[in-house]
Amino acid sequence: MSALVWLNGILLSEESCVGISPSDRGFTLGDGVFETIRVSSGIPLYVEHHLERLRIGCSLLQIPINYRDHELLVYIGETITANGLSEAVLRITVTRGTGKRGILPPTNPEPTIVISASPYESHLLGEDISRVNLIVSSVARNNLSPTSRIKSCNYLDNILARMEASEKGAYDAVMLNTNGEVACTTSANLFIVQEGRLITPPPSAGVLNGTVRRVLLDRLCHRLGLSVIERKVSLQDLLSADEVFITNSVIGVLGVDNINGNRIGKRDSGEITLDIRRELEKDIDLYKTHFRWQGSVS
Amino acid sequence: MSALVWLNGILLSEESCVGISPSDRGFTLGDGVFETIRVSSGIPLYVEHHLERLRIGCSLLQIPINYRDHELLVYIGETITANGLSEAVLRITVTRGTGKRGILPPTNPEPTIVISASPYESHLLGEDISRVNLIVSSVARNNLSPTSRIKSCNYLDNILARMEASEKGAYDAVMLNTNGEVACTTSANLFIVQEGRLITPPPSAGVLNGTVRRVLLDRLCHRLGLSVIERKVSLQDLLSADEVFITNSVIGVLGVDNINGNRIGKRDSGEITLDIRRELEKDIDLYKTHFRWQGSVS
Repeated sequence: MSALVWLNGILLSEESCVGISPSDRGFTLGDGVFETIRVSSGIPLYVEHHLERLRIGCSLLQIPINYRDHELLVYIGETITANGLSEAVLRITVTRGTGKRGILPPTNPEPTIVISASPYESHLLGEDISRVNLIVSSVARNNLSPTSRIKSCNYLDNILARMEASEKGAYDAVMLNTNGEVACTTSANLFIVQEGRLITPPPSAGVLNGTVRRVLLDRLCHRLGLSVIERKVSLQDLLSADEVFITNSVIGVLGVDNINGNRIGKRDSGEITLDIRRELEKDIDLYKTHFRWQGSVS
Repeated sequence: MSALVWLNGILLSEESCVGISPSDRGFTLGDGVFETIRVSSGIPLYVEHHLERLRIGCSLLQIPINYRDHELLVYIGETITANGLSEAVLRITVTRGTGKRGILPPTNPEPTIVISASPYESHLLGEDISRVNLIVSSVARNNLSPTSRIKSCNYLDNILARMEASEKGAYDAVMLNTNGEVACTTSANLFIVQEGRLITPPPSAGVLNGTVRRVLLDRLCHRLGLSVIERKVSLQDLLSADEVFITNSVIGVLGVDNINGNRIGKRDSGEITLDIRRELEKDIDLYKTHFRWQGSVS
């Protein structure tokens, strides 16, 4: 007999569930990883970086992915087309699939893969908000867990921190790690500008290696002749910085106006932030020019 | 148009998913809590403690539960009966339900509630394993997050620690918190016996208040004339203890034979552990004698 599951008021045979199984470990334990990819002019930006990071996360968790990159790319394209969206935010989720009760993973997991697309909300681009306010959250980022360096489906700490920000009227919350050092916000990497130099916390501080962060470290700073280093950032460094900005795949680069009510920077400049932002836009245009949908599933 | 979601090879309208929606925040972000309840002779043991803790977790996360306890109890009973199980492990999961893309919760969430039952595997009772081996995990328990004190759906740290235990042939893994103090194992509370006295880490150490832990602190130790205190436990305390045992709703009380290969206790006694275990069995029998299914949904 197939197990019967009480789901939102109805007793269902577990097999008759067409959606996600109630025994999917993604649902029961948050046992999975995901990627959030911006789609612009129908093109999934920096998709190869996202797929690489997805595989690093799956590898850490020992979740096998039964598809190759060019296959995933075809499904990504199909999902974008089927939803009729050219400006979108695409999400790929990979969980360990269903499992028996308990924490220990099944020996031969059959992963669940979901690709979904949402309309891109243009205000996220920063057309409406060019500088945002942050708070410092009381919830710590657990840099003592390897999950702090992958994009896992365990988002409760970030959700609690984001709710705290929202209640205080802030856009997002800075999370400090277990040593009290600055790690990131609930959904973005963080950079500070100190005497013309860019500084961002290293992955060991409990930081996800964001794709925009990566592009910035790899080439944008170099192109602008700016020096950038990864090193510990204290709360004092953050609050006394000349400029602070946050980056992620959806928002790109956003300047920070104040943190916990403290105005960032002496003047209302944020010039380096603006330079970085323009350089990212150029890089995205370049990416779109060179992007080609490759192959097909056969 | 309903959003189209690519799910394990098929593009589905999100509305046609009968199971868990792919946009359920439990699935996408681990945004929920759960309880694991042992069912014995068809009776859900200490169910009122479990429902109380479920509500505390939901309250912290600001997830509303639209059912009262007596209603949930009816659904629990229905699920047990429908599955034809009298010895079972029942799970109640409450997530924040579906939401738009992003971390911030919807303003008016419609929670997803799942009740499922699995057969009780009798070896978990300790009939086959009366003393187990543990390792100390390298993954830290984040006591600096309030989620460490609720039974949330964010289990990746525990999964990684449990996989580590499994790879080393151990039954479970001890997790230390961010101060290096003993917190718990991946699925159980931890007690040490020191000179005839019981010691267990407090919730502030990053510990979930387990139901068996609670019953033990509330009355079992008192009945046995044993003193028990909540205080910090160092790794040294743990390794040099006279006895160590672990507790949870499914296993009850299990003695620990060795940790990281170090034998616990000088003699092969574990007498206090056995006393506690017998007292728990008596308490369960008493619970079952007095338990009554109350009311119905109407």
